[in-house]
Amino acid sequence: MANNLLKGKTGVIFGALDEQSIAWKVAERCHEEGAKLVLTNAPVAMRFGAINQLAEKLNAPVIPADATSLEDLENLFSKATEHFGGKIDFVLHSIGMSLNVRKKKEYTDLNYEWMKTTFDISAISFHKVMQTLLKQDAMNEWGSIAGLTYIAAQRVFPDYSEMAESKALLESFARSFGYHFGTQKKVRVNTVSQSPTWTTAGSGVKGFQEFFDYADKMSPLGNASADACADYCVFLFSDLSRMVTMQNLYHDGGFSSMGMNPAVLGL
Amino acid sequence: MANNLLKGKTGVIFGALDEQSIAWKVAERCHEEGAKLVLTNAPVAMRFGAINQLAEKLNAPVIPADATSLEDLENLFSKATEHFGGKIDFVLHSIGMSLNVRKKKEYTDLNYEWMKTTFDISAISFHKVMQTLLKQDAMNEWGSIAGLTYIAAQRVFPDYSEMAESKALLESFARSFGYHFGTQKKVRVNTVSQSPTWTTAGSGVKGFQEFFDYADKMSPLGNASADACADYCVFLFSDLSRMVTMQNLYHDGGFSSMGMNPAVLGL
Amino acid sequence: MANNLLKGKTGVIFGALDEQSIAWKVAERCHEEGAKLVLTNAPVAMRFGAINQLAEKLNAPVIPADATSLEDLENLFSKATEHFGGKIDFVLHSIGMSLNVRKKKEYTDLNYEWMKTTFDISAISFHKVMQTLLKQDAMNEWGSIAGLTYIAAQRVFPDYSEMAESKALLESFARSFGYHFGTQKKVRVNTVSQSPTWTTAGSGVKGFQEFFDYADKMSPLGNASADACADYCVFLFSDLSRMVTMQNLYHDGGFSSMGMNPAVLGL
Amino acid sequence: MANNLLKGKTGVIFGALDEQSIAWKVAERCHEEGAKLVLTNAPVAMRFGAINQLAEKLNAPVIPADATSLEDLENLFSKATEHFGGKIDFVLHSIGMSLNVRKKKEYTDLNYEWMKTTFDISAISFHKVMQTLLKQDAMNEWGSIAGLTYIAAQRVFPDYSEMAESKALLESFARSFGYHFGTQKKVRVNTVSQSPTWTTAGSGVKGFQEFFDYADKMSPLGNASADACADYCVFLFSDLSRMVTMQNLYHDGGFSSMGMNPAVLGL
Repeated sequence: MANNLLKGKTGVIFGALDEQSIAWKVAERCHEEGAKLVLTNAPVAMRFGAINQLAEKLNAPVIPADATSLEDLENLFSKATEHFGGKIDFVLHSIGMSLNVRKKKEYTDLNYEWMKTTFDISAISFHKVMQTLLKQDAMNEWGSIAGLTYIAAQRVFPDYSEMAESKALLESFARSFGYHFGTQKKVRVNTVSQSPTWTTAGSGVKGFQEFFDYADKMSPLGNASADACADYCVFLFSDLSRMVTMQNLYHDGGFSSMGMNPAVLGL
Repeated sequence: MANNLLKGKTGVIFGALDEQSIAWKVAERCHEEGAKLVLTNAPVAMRFGAINQLAEKLNAPVIPADATSLEDLENLFSKATEHFGGKIDFVLHSIGMSLNVRKKKEYTDLNYEWMKTTFDISAISFHKVMQTLLKQDAMNEWGSIAGLTYIAAQRVFPDYSEMAESKALLESFARSFGYHFGTQKKVRVNTVSQSPTWTTAGSGVKGFQEFFDYADKMSPLGNASADACADYCVFLFSDLSRMVTMQNLYHDGGFSSMGMNPAVLGL
Repeated sequence: MANNLLKGKTGVIFGALDEQSIAWKVAERCHEEGAKLVLTNAPVAMRFGAINQLAEKLNAPVIPADATSLEDLENLFSKATEHFGGKIDFVLHSIGMSLNVRKKKEYTDLNYEWMKTTFDISAISFHKVMQTLLKQDAMNEWGSIAGLTYIAAQRVFPDYSEMAESKALLESFARSFGYHFGTQKKVRVNTVSQSPTWTTAGSGVKGFQEFFDYADKMSPLGNASADACADYCVFLFSDLSRMVTMQNLYHDGGFSSMGMNPAVLGL
Repeated sequence: MANNLLKGKTGVIFGALDEQSIAWKVAERCHEEGAKLVLTNAPVAMRFGAINQLAEKLNAPVIPADATSLEDLENLFSKATEHFGGKIDFVLHSIGMSLNVRKKKEYTDLNYEWMKTTFDISAISFHKVMQTLLKQDAMNEWGSIAGLTYIAAQRVFPDYSEMAESKALLESFARSFGYHFGTQKKVRVNTVSQSPTWTTAGSGVKGFQEFFDYADKMSPLGNASADACADYCVFLFSDLSRMVTMQNLYHDGGFSSMGMNPAVLGL
């Protein structure tokens, strides 16, 4: 399926680690739809990832950037617009990491320094990306910015721990900055609340298999795959979604609207 | 813009009255994207509308149907699948009418017989459409059904009167039937919560101009037009939205996420 | 526990069938808190219920009324204000019945005449109650009106069938009429979204036991009992909640904010 | 009005600065309802506040604590339970401060170090309070914890700036910790989303007067006052709300359910 939906558009994709990454699939699909891309990831993530393979395949430069560093972001967007010979049409933020989860600290015994690092990486980076883009006037009018999130921002999934708060923060930044970016530059900002997905990041979370299966059974269409999410992001970056902004969009096979599914109870 | 997004797909469009109708624009855009269509409207609406012009332009038959009549719906979908030589991929429900509003009854002095007629036309018809489609097994797997709604289902706009309840009902039918259609046939069901739109129907509502202007100022991107809504519906009927179901989707330039916009206060 | 929270207040309670009814418990608690009451129920429900025992115990008259009949409601509120020698401070609407559920029709094979009766009894009656109260100017300023609802209005519980739509309708009426009653008379209108409760009505629903147990395990505090709901209604009718209006209030032990509870999966 | 609703209960109140503070009013009302209290505030806030007057009036000790300091919180709750001769029944968190707002930084030009301090003071402190209480096992079963918040967590009010994110974070902590506190100790955790209120803190925000008037006109019952909020908190700390947890509760005269109010447009 290729429909030239992003022909002539330029985009920056954060967070493609390896073939399982949602960002990886999004980059592939955007390329397929005719977009020119710049890929980026944190230097530390690039070391054990495979982003260079993707870059080669899509003929897209990789510009490393720690998304918590304003200097790195300024450098990234300067280089990207230079590379494109023009402004940016879309940006994907697919970044998340919890130190407390990784170090197996319980939610009732969190380390607060780690929490701040978690928020900085997983959520504040989204504001930094947008603030840098706006200050550099680097987005084209009617551009589109999207961040990946999870329904733990609305409802409790105990093992998700402080990532729930990271996602609540991320979604709030999307709304707040969406107002400013919309009013000033007609740029829309949304978050995609995706089903649990088998990525290298996701699968590391404690109890992920149960979590995944539960969501899959609860959702009338089953869990949305990373491929389907890539299709959805193509839509969000295309002109078909011009008037959608400041929304948290569930891409989840119907999970978010279920109260009880007999399938979960084995009925 | 034409991207063959609906190539090979078949759809039934309810509610195209005249050129201002959202359904009219949706039909045009779906045609442009390669879909084969059947148009339908209530016999009474067809008399003073212009649907035949549209039918000619899109080379699509018009099959009249009162959406409150099961017999009419059965006939419609039988004829439609016969015409297509196969099942249906998408359906748009764009039907709404309030007798109490039309007859200028205050919300605190409603006529309950009229209310029931309003609900029957504006909301229960959506259940009847889906029940008939499911009974006839007339939808293709991974098909898409959408209804048009308004944010009055969540928040109070006094002049919208009993249409608020009609839309709350419509959205609930989408969720409930979406579970059954998803589980049984992989068909998705969603509602699109559209900005106030200058249609023949919309503009008849008391205070519509103020309503429209208020929403336009409140929304960071302004009100979404009928044309933009048509683009959005193309997305909903395309394979890009396969895993989105049982959602109420705001297509409103950001209105739904605003608390206060200084522009509204003239600041 | 008795704190004179409703001392000097007058209330009308709909829906006390027998000792298991939430409305029964609410009436008992309101009496305990010092309120003067009028009890009412549909003539047909009174035949096999025990409302007269309650009436005797609380020294409260029973005025039969079919809540779908404007004449009955007019008579009820006229008699009630006459009995009280003044206006009404609070009203509880605890009425719900689905013909399609009772007759075991599947959600994808509903009888639409029965559906309309269901809506009339379970939801439109709430508008009729409020319209009659407002027309008679029968509510005291800063009065409180509450209806009982269920989270099926927001999320799908397949066995709840068309009652989902009834509750969506009920909650929308609360918001819409809440605006008018608030603006004109300072009267607040809210709905209480209660845990599944073992009442004569509730326990008749197919799969109610599984439903009840699932909710009980999912909720961090367990399901809220009818007794707890009565306490909550006392609050809603007291002066402690004067500025709360047009809200749907979850009284559910936390169920509505849970995404997944390990207890449900037996973890 | 005094109904002994909190007779025999013990509570810790954060954030009473002066007579205009919501926390001040809450403390007064809780005292009136029979509670024994401990008051606390940050040492820096105590210097220019009047908390000692309140302490004297209510015969309650003041134990200073910087709510961002775990040591201070540990000391506070140890001293409080010592003072009470038993565990704590309720806690009010009424703390919020934005460095970027105070220093007039635009939302699109935020200082990220200040942002972190804002989050630490306004939101993370809530987690610290709860984590400390749970670790010390300092809460009685069926106790109640509440935090004050604002609807900017859901919808954009541009001048509220990064406080929107602070409140989104606070509300998420309430849900997440509410699960753990509920499951382990039957303690409920909620947030109260209060109308704009004339406090020393609130009135310092840019454009507060317009903000306040707009909300007042939009709300069918007008803005909820600090006194009404105190009544509401009494309810939340009383046994009437035992089964309400993990909720964000609008106490706002109906503002949150309004889409458009003709009064705002001067109609």
